[in-house]
Amino acid sequence: MQSAKTMSSEPSDRLRGPRFERQLGRILDYATAVFYEKGYERATMRDLSRASGLSLAGLYHYFESKEKLLYLIQRYYFRTVMELLDQRLKNISEPEDRVRAFIHNHLEYFVANFKAYKVLSHEDDVLGKGMGAEIVALKREYYRRCATLVEDLKRSRRLEFNTRIAVMGLFGSINWLHTWYNPRADASADVVAAQISQVFLNGICSVCRR
Amino acid sequence: MQSAKTMSSEPSDRLRGPRFERQLGRILDYATAVFYEKGYERATMRDLSRASGLSLAGLYHYFESKEKLLYLIQRYYFRTVMELLDQRLKNISEPEDRVRAFIHNHLEYFVANFKAYKVLSHEDDVLGKGMGAEIVALKREYYRRCATLVEDLKRSRRLEFNTRIAVMGLFGSINWLHTWYNPRADASADVVAAQISQVFLNGICSVCRR
Repeated sequence: MQSAKTMSSEPSDRLRGPRFERQLGRILDYATAVFYEKGYERATMRDLSRASGLSLAGLYHYFESKEKLLYLIQRYYFRTVMELLDQRLKNISEPEDRVRAFIHNHLEYFVANFKAYKVLSHEDDVLGKGMGAEIVALKREYYRRCATLVEDLKRSRRLEFNTRIAVMGLFGSINWLHTWYNPRADASADVVAAQISQVFLNGICSVCRR
Repeated sequence: MQSAKTMSSEPSDRLRGPRFERQLGRILDYATAVFYEKGYERATMRDLSRASGLSLAGLYHYFESKEKLLYLIQRYYFRTVMELLDQRLKNISEPEDRVRAFIHNHLEYFVANFKAYKVLSHEDDVLGKGMGAEIVALKREYYRRCATLVEDLKRSRRLEFNTRIAVMGLFGSINWLHTWYNPRADASADVVAAQISQVFLNGICSVCRR
């Protein structure tokens, strides 16, 4: 699993120095594993204390609540997948290839970070108002990036379809993996991404041919 | 929401008469609404008591646990969607139309029973071993029906693709709806089903054309 060393970027945490930030990242890795195993609702700060080897008091020194942990995990993974997407898209100009790159980026990243992927998918609406709203905004941004890529393809080929249904259908395909994908038995993320891309892209492109 | 009057089919419940069965169905409808609003983990038997107007003792007369309620809800909806599918497929012979009928049946039924759909999607792995295994078996049966329809189409057109990735991608598209679909703002279940079918079917059929 990718390290979560840079998960925190609160200015107040940075001021507390790199050691504090490293420890924070380590705790978030443990928290991801605990939420994955037990589910967020059932996991307790005591479970986190056992997993991380830190005392409860030590944990509360870094996090005021379990909710804050879930928020930081979600924020980290959504931000990172978008940064990776931006890097990947830099050198790709063909609209169809850009949609393909989106699908590939999403699956490659979340298959490589499967526990986090499952936590993100399963605990998508448990955060309270303030932190929850921030995560919802990040997800909307991610949705919009995908929708923009699909809209660009639609315009360039003069296709006609409902973008929202198409994009949400695609998100369904690539997010559902957490319910069935078995890294040991199933094809690699590359192969899954290639087929999902082909079905989706040929599917939406053939809509215009009708 | 569709009534859950026939949700129970335990022989021991039937022996207790139609009044017992009706009351059971009524409680399951309330339980679906409460799990939808609060989430299964957070919902308590006390919430169910408030919502249904039954005393706690009255509730326990019908159900020994909250888990049993979730199990009966899941069992009812999975069984019903499969019964409806079987009826629908009776008069359809063309493989492509049969896959389209599967998609249409799924979306029509779960959009009409949106609260249950959300409970089923969100609480998909909280049941303990015995009841959980039975629900897993029902889901596998449902998956197999879809996979068989897709395999029939694949064979009839001599297509080449990975059936598991295709079917799971399709399940993702049609199950993801619970995260975004707004019956008041979005297109009808028919329109969503038509576009998802078109994208999926043209997508998998064009795989062979390459």
